[in-house]
Amino acid sequence: MRLEYFHDPSAPPPNVLVPAAFAVVRDDAGRILLCRRADTGNWEIPGGSVEVGESAPDAVRREVEEETGVLIIVTGVSGIYTDPGYVIAYSTGEVRQQFAVCFHARPRAGGARPDCEETAQVGWMSPDRLDRLPIHPGVRVRLDAALTDPDHVHVT
Amino acid sequence: MRLEYFHDPSAPPPNVLVPAAFAVVRDDAGRILLCRRADTGNWEIPGGSVEVGESAPDAVRREVEEETGVLIIVTGVSGIYTDPGYVIAYSTGEVRQQFAVCFHARPRAGGARPDCEETAQVGWMSPDRLDRLPIHPGVRVRLDAALTDPDHVHVT
Repeated sequence: MRLEYFHDPSAPPPNVLVPAAFAVVRDDAGRILLCRRADTGNWEIPGGSVEVGESAPDAVRREVEEETGVLIIVTGVSGIYTDPGYVIAYSTGEVRQQFAVCFHARPRAGGARPDCEETAQVGWMSPDRLDRLPIHPGVRVRLDAALTDPDHVHVT
Repeated sequence: MRLEYFHDPSAPPPNVLVPAAFAVVRDDAGRILLCRRADTGNWEIPGGSVEVGESAPDAVRREVEEETGVLIIVTGVSGIYTDPGYVIAYSTGEVRQQFAVCFHARPRAGGARPDCEETAQVGWMSPDRLDRLPIHPGVRVRLDAALTDPDHVHVT
């Protein structure tokens, strides 16, 4: 069980701060690589927790490949997302606040296919389809920031 | 006891990844706010660990005030420093890898004075003095990056 809260008054307070790295990956046609969670059905930008001994760029390359099968080239930094108002609560009692870096990236190889059990579906999405996809608000702010103002580093 | 290693073959491997936030604070004259460690005598850019429930910008404002007495305005992101080749080993057995964001900032109030027991001295330094100050290489890369290429977000 995993519940996401974004500035929700009923959210439990975070009890752990987890370094994480995500990527907004765009192909030559401007499409965005997204993956769909098996549990909630929401679409997300690929990425995840950074391991000890690993840099943030190494982590995001590993996570994106694990989740989507796509090898990426990191091209820049889109944002630093550390807002304690966005938390993920697990049935273990862990309430996770992310200390996340969101990178810009492009694909260098690999097909988009779900590669781990958390991910039900992977796809290249046209930006004009995003409004109609189920995307958690905490993820949507990161995606919107990367697409509407790619040259600015967003900080929350 | 606290030992810093920067790409040192004798360094112990990291066993914890700690979110941190630092600031290169410059005043109107272009001087940089630095603090001097009481233990090693090295000069550092102010900052420190981010607490659970706190954002990175909130953390850096708090840490800089605690260490130097200076209240700051965060103006941008200078770099993301997560290189596992830079570790800090403590006598407790903790070997810390930082997951650090380095911000650009300017002062808004407060005098530069040491405000915590870790800090022996605080000062506004002219950039042309930096080469002669004892600064750990892991800190110097962050400082040099912020000063020589302030409009680029550095990632290691």
